[in-house]
Amino acid sequence: MTPEPTRDADVDLIVRQAARASDEWRAASLEARAAALVAMGDALDAHADRLIPIAREETRLAEERLQGELKRTSFQLRLFADIVRDGAWIDARIDHADADWPMGAPRPDLRRQLESVGAVLVFSASNFPFAFSVAGGDTASALAAGSAVVLKAHGGHPRLSEATAEVVMDAARAAGAPAHLLQVVYGRDAGVRALRAPEIKAASFTGSVSGGRALFDIAASRDEPIPFYGELGSVNPVFVTARPAEERAERVAAEFVASFTGSAGQLCTKPGLLFVPEGSALERALGEVRLEEGAPLLNESIATGFERTLSATQEQAGVRVLAEGAPGEGPAPILLTAPADAVLEHFEALTAEMFGPAAVVVPYRSDDQLGEIAERLEGQLTATLIAEDDEPLAADLLAALTRRAGRVLWNQWPTGVSVTFAQQHGGPYPATTAVGTTSVGTAAIERFLRPVAYQNVPDALLPAALREENPLGIPRLVDGRLQSPPAGGEATS
Amino acid sequence: MTPEPTRDADVDLIVRQAARASDEWRAASLEARAAALVAMGDALDAHADRLIPIAREETRLAEERLQGELKRTSFQLRLFADIVRDGAWIDARIDHADADWPMGAPRPDLRRQLESVGAVLVFSASNFPFAFSVAGGDTASALAAGSAVVLKAHGGHPRLSEATAEVVMDAARAAGAPAHLLQVVYGRDAGVRALRAPEIKAASFTGSVSGGRALFDIAASRDEPIPFYGELGSVNPVFVTARPAEERAERVAAEFVASFTGSAGQLCTKPGLLFVPEGSALERALGEVRLEEGAPLLNESIATGFERTLSATQEQAGVRVLAEGAPGEGPAPILLTAPADAVLEHFEALTAEMFGPAAVVVPYRSDDQLGEIAERLEGQLTATLIAEDDEPLAADLLAALTRRAGRVLWNQWPTGVSVTFAQQHGGPYPATTAVGTTSVGTAAIERFLRPVAYQNVPDALLPAALREENPLGIPRLVDGRLQSPPAGGEATS
Repeated sequence: MTPEPTRDADVDLIVRQAARASDEWRAASLEARAAALVAMGDALDAHADRLIPIAREETRLAEERLQGELKRTSFQLRLFADIVRDGAWIDARIDHADADWPMGAPRPDLRRQLESVGAVLVFSASNFPFAFSVAGGDTASALAAGSAVVLKAHGGHPRLSEATAEVVMDAARAAGAPAHLLQVVYGRDAGVRALRAPEIKAASFTGSVSGGRALFDIAASRDEPIPFYGELGSVNPVFVTARPAEERAERVAAEFVASFTGSAGQLCTKPGLLFVPEGSALERALGEVRLEEGAPLLNESIATGFERTLSATQEQAGVRVLAEGAPGEGPAPILLTAPADAVLEHFEALTAEMFGPAAVVVPYRSDDQLGEIAERLEGQLTATLIAEDDEPLAADLLAALTRRAGRVLWNQWPTGVSVTFAQQHGGPYPATTAVGTTSVGTAAIERFLRPVAYQNVPDALLPAALREENPLGIPRLVDGRLQSPPAGGEATS
Repeated sequence: MTPEPTRDADVDLIVRQAARASDEWRAASLEARAAALVAMGDALDAHADRLIPIAREETRLAEERLQGELKRTSFQLRLFADIVRDGAWIDARIDHADADWPMGAPRPDLRRQLESVGAVLVFSASNFPFAFSVAGGDTASALAAGSAVVLKAHGGHPRLSEATAEVVMDAARAAGAPAHLLQVVYGRDAGVRALRAPEIKAASFTGSVSGGRALFDIAASRDEPIPFYGELGSVNPVFVTARPAEERAERVAAEFVASFTGSAGQLCTKPGLLFVPEGSALERALGEVRLEEGAPLLNESIATGFERTLSATQEQAGVRVLAEGAPGEGPAPILLTAPADAVLEHFEALTAEMFGPAAVVVPYRSDDQLGEIAERLEGQLTATLIAEDDEPLAADLLAALTRRAGRVLWNQWPTGVSVTFAQQHGGPYPATTAVGTTSVGTAAIERFLRPVAYQNVPDALLPAALREENPLGIPRLVDGRLQSPPAGGEATS
């Protein structure tokens, strides 16, 4: 049975419960937090046979893709358990009192750590029903930070959301976590009401620019504005220089097609623009690619949106179809092309995201023209260079692209976002609404933390991370110098 | 001669120049950035005899106070030079490719660092014409991060702003910095125009809640919203428990008076509320304090605002005058009192900031009543406990206060903010508009940084911080483990 939209009174109760659970969770030991995260990950794996069939029914995604995504999701929960224990994210800093501090006034004893920001609201995404949903990266990183989570279920998979919450929260409670550590609300109105609630201290979102911006505006216009971590839109341009466009044209064309059509093009990092040298072997190869039959899109809303953005692109002067697959259970994959001159003339329209199996190949006339396009691009999650090391254009382009994208790639493709320590999934607006953050990878925990300094507080009243003896064995900055944990600590080499 | 308001066309030119200077500065070596910061600090000290008389004329602050503030400001520039060289702020992370990454898919080579967010707009404050102005903490931390700065001069000290910019930029240019690294604009309209300019990628502000919120709203409603680091208002409550209120009443009363009247009460961290046990020796001692003659306030706007907020507080039922000084060159220092019941009834009015030499003493009846008040407080820069270690109330209050304040103090006073590694000057709204950040201390650099990940990029094309051999000798997270720099590095112990 599909869950009903959550009523106003229930939303109000849920956010109050979340605030109390957050206070309790913030005070829990790192080990208690880690144990709960591990239990949640293990429970997901153990209940795959129950969850995956629901996901298949609700999202039309393939079995294999869902199996992989579930594995990624449980891995992610366990990875954040490791991160919690490591403690480097606490950014513990200790300044001992110093009567001769050269500022001109004595320095008091000051100790600073990062603590949970409070209860967090997570809007889940449609395209990753596990990895960016109830028990996904936002939830994992918020729980790791010591925050309770109110999860706004995506309308595309409500029953899966309910079942996932049940599975992971049964496990978390059994591991000692507060009963209301993770609660789910349903329906757009419930999400907006929760976003306006004073008990909610930060929110995260993955979805469209229009939806995300509307929620960002609500978060920013509250009496108490709160951080809103929106991961919105990105067209993920790929720039191919002269040599690979001649020397490995077939391979680049094939890899590009695989990347832009994978998951029916419904990935935040789908490469939507491919810049190729005019008249190159690659341009010819792209004219000869075979596109597969269309796979079903996630839901009607995405299908309608894809049709609309595709039409808008095709209507621009100079745009023509380079290759097209056959319609299947979903719309036919399609490769358009438009000359760079047309892109420069209708920049916004021709660099707009199409969320589905479509991309635009842009032949360019000169390096200067490519540079001009790179300078005009708005914020991106990723930007990719297909190039050789010794091409002078490559270094210049790389510098330009790092100012516009959160992740720059070299001879690899942007889809398939690995969950690691150094991953960055974010970028200047509209890629995200919070340019300094990531929603994938271990640094995602930073979004849900705030610093607190303790001045002259007796050791016994300090949080464990800041006590003189370093009982947690974490790395700390002591009087401005990084100190490894004492022998036996595992956090540093 | 007082500088004229900057014209629109000049603002437009200045932000374009800032964007170009920022690109150049971002590419400068850490050593080049550090050298410029040191040169700027040294130049401030060398030109004290020129700058301090202008500051005295424009701000009416005392000579000694200005000398101390200048010293703090030049120290701060040199401290950020040390921080730049240390390189820990880069948060360099390297994940080597791993075919067996347990996520279920191979991990690519990923390397991530923090880089400048781009050109920054800094609104300077009235109350610290050096430390929170042209060459103050926001500027120092933005330059350290690799950002060029457009500085909106405060109307309270325009000539000093112009002179300071000339002094520090002559030194910076001589040290090799870009000509437009730091530029000043004058007038409210120029500030707003710069804030709306697409070339500006972040902004910081220190001032009133009303002014800061208006600017925050502009930053958030841009086509490309940008981070806005506003440090707005705080009443900095102080909670005195039973024992010190009896055992060291005279001392606490004297220290409180010194703290709330220092700099004529025009400090962000001025303790504006003092909670004392009803009928305690401290309450009696506070009825007998002698307040000095009033010192001049910074400018007419602040004097008017102080008068208005003071009247609004005095008009509340239950409020009476506990002690009052004599008017001098400025308004008489004044100590009000109101019972805790009245505070709970008119909470907003009686916990509002009065920016000037006034505070409210609140006798409380019970620990429960004090706890209730602590739970209702809005976000604060600081909260202070005057207590003994073995009082059970102290630990409970401490936990409540860390959820509401960026810095909690124990038996010390919040005024006099030390510039250190562990300092935290920020807190939940309205203390700041960006709860996760600080505007004082070395962590202030984090506000002007954004992460960029490099995937599979050849070593020669990587930024120095991410090259395999660690040529900068900085601490890095390699495959999830913190690594100290190689022998000879100075960053870690």
